[in-house]
Order: sequence, then C-alpha cells, then structure tokens
Amino acid sequence: MSPARTEAFSDGVFSIAATLLVLDLKVPQANGDLLSALARQWPAYASYAVSFLTIGIIWMNHHTIFAHLRRVDRPLQVLNLLLLLVVALIPFPTSILATYLESGHDQAAAGAIYGLVMTAMGLSFGSLWMYVLRLDDLRITTISAARKRQLLLRFAVGTPIYAAGIGLAFVSARLSLFVYAALAIYYLVEPLPAEIGDLRS
Amino acid sequence: MSPARTEAFSDGVFSIAATLLVLDLKVPQANGDLLSALARQWPAYASYAVSFLTIGIIWMNHHTIFAHLRRVDRPLQVLNLLLLLVVALIPFPTSILATYLESGHDQAAAGAIYGLVMTAMGLSFGSLWMYVLRLDDLRITTISAARKRQLLLRFAVGTPIYAAGIGLAFVSARLSLFVYAALAIYYLVEPLPAEIGDLRS
Amino acid sequence: MSPARTEAFSDGVFSIAATLLVLDLKVPQANGDLLSALARQWPAYASYAVSFLTIGIIWMNHHTIFAHLRRVDRPLQVLNLLLLLVVALIPFPTSILATYLESGHDQAAAGAIYGLVMTAMGLSFGSLWMYVLRLDDLRITTISAARKRQLLLRFAVGTPIYAAGIGLAFVSARLSLFVYAALAIYYLVEPLPAEIGDLRS
Amino acid sequence: MSPARTEAFSDGVFSIAATLLVLDLKVPQANGDLLSALARQWPAYASYAVSFLTIGIIWMNHHTIFAHLRRVDRPLQVLNLLLLLVVALIPFPTSILATYLESGHDQAAAGAIYGLVMTAMGLSFGSLWMYVLRLDDLRITTISAARKRQLLLRFAVGTPIYAAGIGLAFVSARLSLFVYAALAIYYLVEPLPAEIGDLRS
Repeated sequence: MSPARTEAFSDGVFSIAATLLVLDLKVPQANGDLLSALARQWPAYASYAVSFLTIGIIWMNHHTIFAHLRRVDRPLQVLNLLLLLVVALIPFPTSILATYLESGHDQAAAGAIYGLVMTAMGLSFGSLWMYVLRLDDLRITTISAARKRQLLLRFAVGTPIYAAGIGLAFVSARLSLFVYAALAIYYLVEPLPAEIGDLRS
Repeated sequence: MSPARTEAFSDGVFSIAATLLVLDLKVPQANGDLLSALARQWPAYASYAVSFLTIGIIWMNHHTIFAHLRRVDRPLQVLNLLLLLVVALIPFPTSILATYLESGHDQAAAGAIYGLVMTAMGLSFGSLWMYVLRLDDLRITTISAARKRQLLLRFAVGTPIYAAGIGLAFVSARLSLFVYAALAIYYLVEPLPAEIGDLRS
Repeated sequence: MSPARTEAFSDGVFSIAATLLVLDLKVPQANGDLLSALARQWPAYASYAVSFLTIGIIWMNHHTIFAHLRRVDRPLQVLNLLLLLVVALIPFPTSILATYLESGHDQAAAGAIYGLVMTAMGLSFGSLWMYVLRLDDLRITTISAARKRQLLLRFAVGTPIYAAGIGLAFVSARLSLFVYAALAIYYLVEPLPAEIGDLRS
Repeated sequence: MSPARTEAFSDGVFSIAATLLVLDLKVPQANGDLLSALARQWPAYASYAVSFLTIGIIWMNHHTIFAHLRRVDRPLQVLNLLLLLVVALIPFPTSILATYLESGHDQAAAGAIYGLVMTAMGLSFGSLWMYVLRLDDLRITTISAARKRQLLLRFAVGTPIYAAGIGLAFVSARLSLFVYAALAIYYLVEPLPAEIGDLRS
C-alpha cells in the first residue's frame, strides 16, 4: 500500500485534534469583569498552546518519517492507528489540566494524567519510529546502524522527560506544565533531522 | 470519475468521526477526588477505544477497496455516502453506551443501540464491498469467482457478530462491549487482505 | 491557480459540516426509559439524515463541477467561499428544526429557517454553477449553448422547491422536512450528470 | 521537504477552524418566540460571517504563498505552525464577541480581545510572508526588490487596521466589528495578487 492515504487520514486526525483544543476555552459568563475573568483562565491558554505545539511537533516528525516510506504494511498501519488514538485523546487531559489548575483543586493528579497521556504518545510514536528504522525495505533510504542508534536516542530523550513530568506534577503541576512547554519549544528549535538517511542508489 | 476526491471526502469523515469521540470524555467537576472520578468513567474510555479502533479498521478496509478502483460511478458514491452517514453517527451510540454503562441505568438498551449502529455499519460496508466485487470494470484488478466468495465470506463474518451483540446486550451490556472490542482486535490482527485480486494484465 | 487546493479546503468544510451534525444528537439523561426517550427524538434523526445527505449531494455536485475545471480564478474562489459559508452553517438550522419539532413549539418558524438556509445554499451553488458554465476558458470541456440551458434548468429546479418549503413550513413543518427528504432522495437517484460537456479537442 | 503535506495539515486546520464557528450559534430554548430570539442573536451571525470570511481570506493568501514554494524548511514550518495556532484560536474570540455584544455587557473588552487575536493573526501571517519573500531559494519564482517592498506594503496594511480596531472597540465594539467586516470584504475584492513574481527561467 502506498503511504498517501495513510498520510491523509493521519493529517486529518492531527489537524482536528489540534483544532478541537479551542473548544476547551470557555467564554466567561457575561455578568462580571471580562478581562479579569479571562486572566484567571491563564492555565487554559497555556495548556492550549503547549498541546497545540506538541501535536504540531508530532505531526512534523510524522511527516519526516512518512517522507522516507516507500510503502506502508499492516503492522505499520496498526502502530500508526494506536498513535492516532493517543493523539486524538490529547484534548481530554488538556481540558483536565486547565480545569484543575484554574480551580486549584487536585492539581497534582491533573498534571500526572496529562503527563501520562504525553508519555503514552511518546511511547507509541517511539514504536512507530523503531518499526520504520528496523524494516529497511519499507524505506526509500538506507540508514547505517550507527545512525539508527543516534536517531533513536535523539528521539527517545523526550519520553522519559514526559514520564518524569508525572512525578513532578506531585511537586507542582504548574512546574510540570512548564517542563512540557520547554520540551515543546526544544523540539521546535531542535526537531528530528529532516535527513534521516541516504537515498537508496 | 476518479476515486481521488471521494477518498478525500471519506478520509475527512472517518478522521473527524474518530476524533470527535474525545468530546464525549467529560472532565469531572473540580470538587471531588479526580482520580476516583476518572476511574468511575472507565466505560467512556473503553467505548472511546473500541469505537476509535473500529472506525480505524473500517477506514483501513475502505482504503484497501479504493486502492483497487479504477473509477467511481454514481451508485458507488451513493453507497459510500450511506456508509459515511453511519460512520459519522458512531459518536452518538458511543456516548449513549458510555453514559448508561457508567450510570448503571438501562444498560441493555444502550448496548443494543450500539450494536444496532455497528450492524448498520457492517451492512452498509458489506453493500459497498459486494458492489465493488460485482462490477469488474470499476476495478483495476481481476478477481476469480472463488476468490470473490472467499473475500465476501471473510468480511461478512463481522456483521452477524455485531448483530448478535444486540441480543447479548440484554444478557450483559459489558459483555457486548467486550465482544465488540474483541472483534476490533481480531480485525486489527487479521484484516481484509491488502491483495484482493490480480492486477489486470 | 490550480483547483487542487480549493478542492482540499472545500472537502474539509463539507466533511466537517456533515460530521458535526452528530453533535446535535443528545444523549437522553440516564433516569428514564432510554428507548422511549430516543424514540421521542425522531426529528433529530430525520434532520440528521436529511442534512447529511443534502451536504453529501452538494459535495458530489461540487466534485462534478471541479472535475471540469482547468483553473480557479478569484471570483470563483469568492463564490466558492460563500457557498462554504452556507454549507458550514447547516448544522445550526438542523439543530433548530430538530429541537422545535421535538418540543412541538414554534415549528413553523423552525421549518422556515431550515428552508431559508437551504434556499441560500441552492442560490450560492447556482451562482457558482452559472459562473463556471459562463467562463469557457476555466473549463477543460466545451459545452454547447443548448446544453448549458439544459444543465442550468436541471439544477435550478431544486432551489424553488427549497423556497417553497419555507412557505410549506407554515402549513406543517413535518411536511416541509418530508419535502426536503424527498428532494435529497431525488438528487441521489437523479444527480447532476457527471458528463457535463465534451473534452476540448 | 515538499510543501504538499504542510498544505494538507494547514488546509485541515483552516477548514476545521472555519467550520467549528457554527458551534457558537446557540439554538434558543423552545419556550419563547423563536424568530425574535434568533433576531436578538444578530451579533452571533455577524461574528460568524466575519470570522468565516477572514479565515477564508487567510487561507486564500496561504494558498497563494504556498503555490510559489519549491520546498519547505523547518523555520517556515514553525512560522506556519504559529500562524495555525492563532487561526485555530479564532472561534474563541468570535464567541466572546458574540456573547458580549448580545448581552450588552463589557462590549469594549470583548471587541478589543477580538482585535487582539486578529492582530496576532496578521503579525504571524506577516512573518511567514516576509520569510518567504526573503529566502529566494525556497520559491520557484524570482521577485525583484521593488516588487517585494510593494507586496509587503500591500499585505501589511491590514495589521495596523486590526490593531486600530482594538482601540476602536473602546469607542464602540459594534463599530470595530464593522471595520473587521469591511476589511474582510476589501480583501475579498482586492486580494493578494495571485502572481507574486516571475517563474524562474
């Protein structure tokens, strides 16, 4: 199977999940001071931005991987579907984190759940990535064993940080959100390299 | 008409229906214990996963069929539109099932409705499938009569199981959800074969 | 400009508007009899089906028109954007019609508003259609003057029926919904011909 | 990287953001006069139309720019992602503006927030635009320095008007909405020229 339609379906899920995040921004009731009501909602804007950028980064990395695929087999489609299942879930922990940070109630649990879903996302993306690196005949590129180790390590660094964020949330949920934001900015500035191998000659 | 734009519209509906499922996951009110409130919502997560994977599988099978189409005629577009009408409906019975399993109220009816929509999906997909198998000049592949019978049977096995789930819901709605989950996992592991025929020479 | 990306944006709006219709199907509260509560919601299912099929038909006709375009100019993009503005609005009158038919309150006004939006959709689609028929150098096909008249008439028949539905709603809103359903089924069975002209030689 | 998949993701976000606007049109409760309840909601329809057309115009300009791209580099993807983050946000200030104009409460703040998001959109689009104009090897077209100045000025005129709308909202929020509507109509009639340079020979 050619990768084109799997990309189309995935692009759909990525762009919808990112755009649905806006539905968690609630218009304050029209009976108080709008600006101060909006200011109290800062966790919603911060969570929106972190989740939007994180989905955008996963999409960019997904794009990078699929640009190197010659064809898509069934295990890859299943791994991709599991990744999309987690990506489509992201608006839910985002909304939990925003609601509980704003209320001040049970913040640790909210931060931990956000970190848990991000860790699941990291793990499912990592599985897809490992599968593509391992099956050389799926790719249009050859990649040396040393380069593969380097690429895996390069990506893998994110997942333990997300996992650490779960624990960090019990110290401070705001701090864990800050770490996820920093990770998003880091990946924007230092993404997976677009060139992950040499074109087969 | 070429299949490309019908695929684009279908990919849109599949990916949106799958991603809208997340809107049925409700953030618990910020006044109790978040983790135990989330734990009580397990039917919502189970329904989310089953419906997401089921939509993903239909999409994969849709992909397989369309990869073999040379062109799309009007009856095929109408059959496809009816399939999409049912697919776009899936978030509704999913939400019913999650709500009623969680409340413990009227679970049998909720499970039966879920099964009914899944049966309708199976029937409409089956109609599309039969139409494509029957009209040889729509395909770029030739398929022997024996292979056609085998392919139809191979697919058709799912629909009676969905239909059986309607009755099963009156025994136990949880059990019927479990059967739908098992069916989704079965189709992930044993999908419609990507190679459904021989390329015309 | 090539038509490809205008098609992609339009396919997005068509498929999202169709899929968002499901959000107007409300899960009955888990404290009464589910099946009878669902049965009382029949106007919501009827409206869902009519609006979904109507959007699907507009999309098919849009597809037919764009398949004959060589390029897209700015006036065409503006006409297309106005059509999409009306298409994206359809979930709103659909929800009004379902709510008011179910409540039995102010049904005439609800039916009239639905008919008004459908008439606006017919008019904006008609404008796009006339523009494409008139500007021969936008198309890859030549169409004789007699064929143009026939094609315009063939399409134009729908809009007065939608407009008549506005008045009919004041007799019976259910009857007007029935007429819109009949029109959708008619267009499914007798769509705009895929062949609207001869390929330029 | 080729621009195709970045276009697909962007088309997804543009079309979803535009179509989600309909979710802010609320069906009046079925216990009063429907038509007069709908008439009171005029700010919601006006905001819907202005935001839909504005998103449509940004999409058309995005289309124009990407039609001239040979490839997409990482900084461009990041600038594009920031633009999409703002575009996906537009339903939120639209909903604020509609709610507060209808209630008559705190209208100035609501109009200012709408203007602020539109200004952010103008600035992020402008950054993308400048980046594409500056990096000649990203484009398939050559553009003279004089033409670049002219194109930048041509686009840049919108952003100060959006920014002025922020202040204008404190005089009258309705007036600021009127200015945004006028700007949308102006850009529909006088868009960025499709021909932004000469094809490289």
